[in-house]
Amino acid sequence: MPGSLASTVSAGSTSVSSRLAEFAHDMRWQDLPAAMQREAARAFLNWVGCAAGGARTESAEAAVRGLYAMSGPGTTPVLGRAERLQPADAALANCLASAADTFDDTHLSTITHPTGPVAAAILALADGRRILGRDLLLALAIGVEIECRISAAITAPGSGSSQGWYITGVSGGIGAAAAAARILGATRGELLAALGLAASQAGGLRATHGSMAIAFVPGFAARNGLAAAHLAAAGFACGDAVIEGRNGLLPVLAPQAEPGAILRDLGTRFEMLGNAYKPYPCGIVIHPSIDACLEIAGRHVAPEAIEAAELAVHADALALCWRKLPASPLEAQVSLFHWAAAALVRGAAGLEEGDSEAVADPRIRALQEVMQARVDPALRGGQARAEVRLRDGTVLRAEVAEATGSLERPMSDGQLAGKFRMLARRRLGEAQVESLLQACWHLPDSRDAGEIGRLGALG
Amino acid sequence: MPGSLASTVSAGSTSVSSRLAEFAHDMRWQDLPAAMQREAARAFLNWVGCAAGGARTESAEAAVRGLYAMSGPGTTPVLGRAERLQPADAALANCLASAADTFDDTHLSTITHPTGPVAAAILALADGRRILGRDLLLALAIGVEIECRISAAITAPGSGSSQGWYITGVSGGIGAAAAAARILGATRGELLAALGLAASQAGGLRATHGSMAIAFVPGFAARNGLAAAHLAAAGFACGDAVIEGRNGLLPVLAPQAEPGAILRDLGTRFEMLGNAYKPYPCGIVIHPSIDACLEIAGRHVAPEAIEAAELAVHADALALCWRKLPASPLEAQVSLFHWAAAALVRGAAGLEEGDSEAVADPRIRALQEVMQARVDPALRGGQARAEVRLRDGTVLRAEVAEATGSLERPMSDGQLAGKFRMLARRRLGEAQVESLLQACWHLPDSRDAGEIGRLGALG
Repeated sequence: MPGSLASTVSAGSTSVSSRLAEFAHDMRWQDLPAAMQREAARAFLNWVGCAAGGARTESAEAAVRGLYAMSGPGTTPVLGRAERLQPADAALANCLASAADTFDDTHLSTITHPTGPVAAAILALADGRRILGRDLLLALAIGVEIECRISAAITAPGSGSSQGWYITGVSGGIGAAAAAARILGATRGELLAALGLAASQAGGLRATHGSMAIAFVPGFAARNGLAAAHLAAAGFACGDAVIEGRNGLLPVLAPQAEPGAILRDLGTRFEMLGNAYKPYPCGIVIHPSIDACLEIAGRHVAPEAIEAAELAVHADALALCWRKLPASPLEAQVSLFHWAAAALVRGAAGLEEGDSEAVADPRIRALQEVMQARVDPALRGGQARAEVRLRDGTVLRAEVAEATGSLERPMSDGQLAGKFRMLARRRLGEAQVESLLQACWHLPDSRDAGEIGRLGALG
Repeated sequence: MPGSLASTVSAGSTSVSSRLAEFAHDMRWQDLPAAMQREAARAFLNWVGCAAGGARTESAEAAVRGLYAMSGPGTTPVLGRAERLQPADAALANCLASAADTFDDTHLSTITHPTGPVAAAILALADGRRILGRDLLLALAIGVEIECRISAAITAPGSGSSQGWYITGVSGGIGAAAAAARILGATRGELLAALGLAASQAGGLRATHGSMAIAFVPGFAARNGLAAAHLAAAGFACGDAVIEGRNGLLPVLAPQAEPGAILRDLGTRFEMLGNAYKPYPCGIVIHPSIDACLEIAGRHVAPEAIEAAELAVHADALALCWRKLPASPLEAQVSLFHWAAAALVRGAAGLEEGDSEAVADPRIRALQEVMQARVDPALRGGQARAEVRLRDGTVLRAEVAEATGSLERPMSDGQLAGKFRMLARRRLGEAQVESLLQACWHLPDSRDAGEIGRLGALG
């Protein structure tokens, strides 16, 4: 019952850190509205797919090599890989892999990628402990809630924070610490210390964008949160107002932030319901144009028959993703023209449409050449139109009022399962993918959440 | 030859990150002036003593429990302890222990505690590798140089940085990464990535002060730097201007900082020569008063004979350390009256003078009661006077123009050895302490720097 939780929280401490610790300690699975219970499972499933799918990206390969060189082998599974790592290294590697394809989820109002740090930390804990699936999902919901609320306070207009913060790194470890400490059975005082120890490690710079290190930032947030939880559970103490107090996270990073906003409707309003899942592995401003092009491609248009194509888009799409003929997969990730052309040519917009073969595909490149895009000020962020003229004079049009994966038109369970299969099959056999997918859907009823790690790993 | 290095550096890249990477890659032991070679050995020796001495503090105990619960056993020694930990955990634990008594070194112009993060990271690497002692010390000098230069840029007046940053956490991991990557034989490009990966993890809040977590911040910097170096050496790439570039460390933390200042006289002027070693485990503003009181105590004054005592101090000493009758060792760490009285009563100002017995010692407390302190605007930071009136009418006076451990009156090798023995004997037998001390003094000639970790651990 949300009401009972709210009264529990308000009866206790009034400081932000303390009330977050109480929330993390007291929240129960049955206090989560049904929509939140479902969303926690969907977020986790989406994350498992992203982590397995990204497990052999160049950045995940290098990270696992480096972590292995540092710490040697461990026993904690890494999704989509055969190595077993130390728990903290596995948390880092799993989170890093889940972000490597820029396919992870997005808390749209703060541009936090919330699930990775939290899920990776608690999945590492679930190995070798018998943790109920619903306890894992409850911890995920708690961690994401705290994470997104801190993100919101720091990124709020007028907070005085720098736009150079990569906010997932700043808040992700705090959410991960809360979730991991909850799994460890921490007391309220230990949860408070875990929040403080995680806040004291908060960091992450947008200067990492455009390099492998864009995925390292969420990765180290997972590791930091796990370490904070373990130290706190072992009696390592921290100041009791490290988030909002003197020389604390908010005063230092966002001096004009309103700490009190973090607590507003805590336990009754859930930030995870503002979390979106990407259907396509590229900049989110490209997504409505992909939707429109896929709709046209679905009418069985031969690419050779296309004479010209025109997109009408929101200004952000061209401002951020203006590259017409990208030279690499990294450039293609932020090219409107690449993805619209690929969607028209292949009738798909998955990882294969972003790889180096697709970037070099002469049919896609030919279409990029004859594609125009213009800003239509009447369009909102999630909207686009596409118009394709065939050599025989036929004109095909599609209009997207809400992009797939937006909050207004969320990914259905079926679409999430499709994304999961597409990603997981890059690393796992078909039967294993289906077992893992079913285990994710049935996680609320699982007696052993660690099963996910074992089912999702190789060897 | 400093000249040859300077020309090497200036011949290469002009970006701050790139030139720091070149410096870290190209610097040779013989390029260090003799004073720097000696100072690197002294800084390391001081650090080993602090780490061994702090190994069983309450915070080190809790941290090791937590790290052990997270990762289990490893093979890397922890100074002053019997456990062997994972390398990253050992780096964190050793650095944390070295800071737990607030006895570690201080780069006075930036209030960075520079040696801990760097030394702990490279000592963890030295275990199981055959690393020359001079290579370890060279790496230490490189790491501290980069660390203190970044601290200086961020803390410079007018840089726009928050005073809430605990600067050792911000820059310590970067210095540690440079040193560790150098030990790993990283290329210039890998060193550049290591700097970026460490900068992207930079954090640390002064809100941790007054709690165990004050020592966690340097600790995680050591771990972060070690991880950054390993990932970089494994080919994990990062942006090439994460320190000074768009959305990088300086623009985000200190928007008005001058990045170019970081490179000024790089390779010819050394920040480690501005590093000071504490003779007493308490706030550095108390130190001149302790010196004065020890001088008087050396004249064999019976505490019972003292009727009154008066201190004349710099304003900072009373503003920061005003507590007259501290109730706990933590309060005593920042009490001018406690340490001045303890020095008079016991003729010493070591760890025993700061423990709970000393805080409760009736002779010390009686003297605190009759002690006055006043600000003398004519005194500088490192200066103080003490005047003691005995019951027989005798008046004893002492005046300190430069505190022991200041840059003007640095700790001699003999004083450092005395501090080392006092600290290390808390954890190690006398013969082991002497072996370890000799190994530290002879480290420049050692064929295996990892010996320090083995000699300094138990079991």
